[in-house]
Amino acid sequence: MYLENINSPEDIKKLNIKELKVLADETRAALINKISNAGGHSGPNLGMVEMTVALHYVFDSPKDKFVFDVSHQCYPHKILTGRKEAFLDSEHFGDVTGYTNPLESKHDIFTVGHTSTSVSLALGLAKGRDLQQSKGNIIAIIGDGSLSGGEALEGVDYAEEYDKNLIIILNDNDQSIAENHGGMYKTLKELRETGGSASNNIFKSFGLDYRYLDNGHDVQSLVEMFKSVKDIDHPIVLHIHTIKGKGLPYAEQDRESWHAGGPFNVEDGSPKVKVQEVDDPVFDSIKELLDTNPEAVVINASTPMGLGMVKGVREEYVKRGQFIDVGIAEENMVAMSSGVAKNGGTVVFGTFAPFFQRTYDQISHDLCLNDSPATMLVLQPGVYGMNSNTHIGLCDIQMFAHIPNLIYLAPANKEEYFGSIINVGV
Amino acid sequence: MYLENINSPEDIKKLNIKELKVLADETRAALINKISNAGGHSGPNLGMVEMTVALHYVFDSPKDKFVFDVSHQCYPHKILTGRKEAFLDSEHFGDVTGYTNPLESKHDIFTVGHTSTSVSLALGLAKGRDLQQSKGNIIAIIGDGSLSGGEALEGVDYAEEYDKNLIIILNDNDQSIAENHGGMYKTLKELRETGGSASNNIFKSFGLDYRYLDNGHDVQSLVEMFKSVKDIDHPIVLHIHTIKGKGLPYAEQDRESWHAGGPFNVEDGSPKVKVQEVDDPVFDSIKELLDTNPEAVVINASTPMGLGMVKGVREEYVKRGQFIDVGIAEENMVAMSSGVAKNGGTVVFGTFAPFFQRTYDQISHDLCLNDSPATMLVLQPGVYGMNSNTHIGLCDIQMFAHIPNLIYLAPANKEEYFGSIINVGV
Repeated sequence: MYLENINSPEDIKKLNIKELKVLADETRAALINKISNAGGHSGPNLGMVEMTVALHYVFDSPKDKFVFDVSHQCYPHKILTGRKEAFLDSEHFGDVTGYTNPLESKHDIFTVGHTSTSVSLALGLAKGRDLQQSKGNIIAIIGDGSLSGGEALEGVDYAEEYDKNLIIILNDNDQSIAENHGGMYKTLKELRETGGSASNNIFKSFGLDYRYLDNGHDVQSLVEMFKSVKDIDHPIVLHIHTIKGKGLPYAEQDRESWHAGGPFNVEDGSPKVKVQEVDDPVFDSIKELLDTNPEAVVINASTPMGLGMVKGVREEYVKRGQFIDVGIAEENMVAMSSGVAKNGGTVVFGTFAPFFQRTYDQISHDLCLNDSPATMLVLQPGVYGMNSNTHIGLCDIQMFAHIPNLIYLAPANKEEYFGSIINVGV
Repeated sequence: MYLENINSPEDIKKLNIKELKVLADETRAALINKISNAGGHSGPNLGMVEMTVALHYVFDSPKDKFVFDVSHQCYPHKILTGRKEAFLDSEHFGDVTGYTNPLESKHDIFTVGHTSTSVSLALGLAKGRDLQQSKGNIIAIIGDGSLSGGEALEGVDYAEEYDKNLIIILNDNDQSIAENHGGMYKTLKELRETGGSASNNIFKSFGLDYRYLDNGHDVQSLVEMFKSVKDIDHPIVLHIHTIKGKGLPYAEQDRESWHAGGPFNVEDGSPKVKVQEVDDPVFDSIKELLDTNPEAVVINASTPMGLGMVKGVREEYVKRGQFIDVGIAEENMVAMSSGVAKNGGTVVFGTFAPFFQRTYDQISHDLCLNDSPATMLVLQPGVYGMNSNTHIGLCDIQMFAHIPNLIYLAPANKEEYFGSIINVGV
C-alpha cells in the first residue's frame, strides 16, 4: 500500500518504477471506488492513471505546471495531490469538484470545463514564466477529441513560434465524447499504426517537434519519455496512445457510454440506480422533422446524446445524410448550418448551452446577418442543466437575445416547446 | 477592349485564353481606377485578378457557388458579374459595398466580412445542394492569413469527412493583414518552395486531397487546374501561390501598408489625401506600460496597427518579448492572455470590436471565471469605427457586459480613457 502515504507529489518521487506501478493500480482502485459509487467521468480518468503517476514522478508540480484540457481527466491528479480522501471515503466524495480547481489545490492552475483550451492557456503560462525570467516546465494535456476545436488548433499553430519550453501531450484514445469526426483522425490513426512515423503528421505540419509512445499505460516508458523532454528549450508534442476506460472491460468496450455516467456495479458495469425513462420532446421533434422532410438535416457538435441521437438510433439518420456530428467544432456547426439554410436545406443545430458560448460570432455574423433560416436548440441552459461553474448556461439569453434577426424562445414545458418550434418552422 | 462587353460570367466564356489575359489586364485597370480614387482593400484584390477571371471562365456561377473568405478580395468578382460601372465610373463607386453582398447580385452568396468562415459556409452549401439532390460545384476561396483562425481549421478538418464535391482554394500570398504568425506558415513556405511536394503538408495531414500551382497569375495554368477539378466527387485543396498587390510595384513591396487604404496616385503610390497626424492615446498608454514594466506584454491578433504597433515601432517590443501578434487567432489571444495573468505577468490584449465576437467563450470561461487580471482593449466599437454591417461592433457592450467578473468601461474621451485604464491597473 503506497497510496496511503501519498499526500503530495513529493511523496511519489520516493518510489521506484516497480512501486510506481503498484501506486498506479491503487490509484485506479481509488478512482473506481469513487466513480462506481458517485458517478463521474469514468473513461477519461481510467485512461490517465499511469500517465498521471509518471507526470508527477518526473515533473515538479506546482513549479512545473499541468494544464488539463477540459480537466475531466484530472481525478488521478487529484488523488495524487493531497485529495485522495475524496475518492476513498464516501463521506468526502463531495469535497472536490469534477474539474481542476485552484481553490482546492496549488496543483490545479485553472478552473476549466470546456474543451480545447489547454494549449493556449499553457502558452500563456509559459509567457508569464518568461516575462518573470523564472523557470519550470509547462505541460498541456489534451485529448484527441478536443484537438478538433478551433481554439486548440489556433494554439497548436501558434505554439511553434513560441521558442521556449512548452510540452503538449496528446492523450490519444481514439475517442471524443462520442466517436471522433474529422480528417485529422484518419491521419492520427496512421500515426498510431506506424509508431508515429506515418508521413502525414499534423503536428509536424504545424512545424512542431514530435515524439510518439504507443503504450500509454506502461509507467516505465512514460517516465523515460517525460525525463527525455523535461526542461526542453522549445515546444514539443508527445503523442501518447492510451485506452479510454482502461481497467474496466465494459468501459474499454463501449467508450461512448462510459465517457461519463452514474453509479454502477463494478463486477458488470450495470447501473446502481435505474435511469428513469422520460419523454424526450427534443428527440421527438427532431425525429418528426427528419422523417417527414428528406431535405432536413440536424447538425451537432460532439454531443449527439443531448439530442436523443444515441447509439443505435443515430446510425439510420447518418446513413440518410440527415444527421451530422462535426466533432468538437461548434463554430463549424453553426457556419455550416448557415450554408445549408442558404442553399435551400432545412436545418436544426444544437448542443449544450455552455458550449454555445463558442459560437457568438458565427450566430451573429455567419447566420443572422445572412438571414439564414435555421433553428438552434440550446440544451440544458441554466443551473438546473449541468451543475459546474464551468457548465452553467446561465447567460445564454443575455448573450444571444440582443443579436439582430434572432428570436430566442425559452419554453417552460413540453407544450410550449412544441408550440415554439412549430412557430419558427421546424 | 473586352471588359465593356462583360455583363455576366456567361460573356467571359466566349473568350479564348489570349483574350482572357487581356480581360484580366482590363479588370486590373478597372480595379486600380476605383481603389486609387476611392480607396479600399488594394493588395488582396490585386492578387485575385487572374484567378477570378479563370474561376468565372471554368465554373458556372451562380449554379457553381464561390464563397470568398472575408470577401475583401471580391472586387474582381464584382467587376466580372455585372457591377463594373462601380469601378469604372466615379459616380457609381458607391453602388457596391466592399464585401460580397447577396442584395447586389445573385453571384454573391453570403454577406461576409470576418475571416476564416469560408470553408464551413461552403460545407453547408454543399450539404444544402446534396439534401436537394441538386448539382454544382462549391468553391471556398481562403487566404493564407485566414487559415490560422479556429473556425477555418475546424472546417478544413471536417471537410475530409464530407465525401462529395467541395473545392477549397488556398490563395497563398504569404501575408496576413500584417505578416503571418504561426507554425503552419513555415510548412506552407516549404510547400511553395518545393512546388507542393514538401513532406509536411497541413492539408494532407487533415486527410485532404491536394494540388499545387506556383504561378497564380497565369490564366492558362489556372484554367487548366480548375478544369481538372470541376465536378470532382470529393473535397480537394488547390494551393495557389499569388502575389498580394500584384501589378502595383509599391504594393507588392510593402504588403502590409497596401492591405487597405485611401486614395493614392497610381504613378508612385503616394496618398492623395494627406493623413492627419492625430494623438493615439491607445498606443501612448501601451508604450508607457511596456517601457516601465518589463513583466508586461501586449497580445494582439493580426491587427497591430489598431494598437499603434505599426511597422518600425513594434519590432523593438517584439524583440523585448513584450509584443506578441498571434496572427488571426482571437481565441488563442484571449486564452493565452489568461495564462500570462495567471502566471504573474501583466497583460493587455486587444483587437477591433467586431473581431472580439470570436472570443465570448474565452472571455467568459478562460479569463473571467479564472480571475485572471487582464485589460482588454476593444478598438473602434460602434458605427463610427468601421462602417460595414459586418464590421460594426454595435453590440460589444451587450455581448460582454453581463459576464460575471468583467468590468466594461466605455471612455468618451482621452481623459476618461487614461482614467479608466489606470483604475483597472494598466
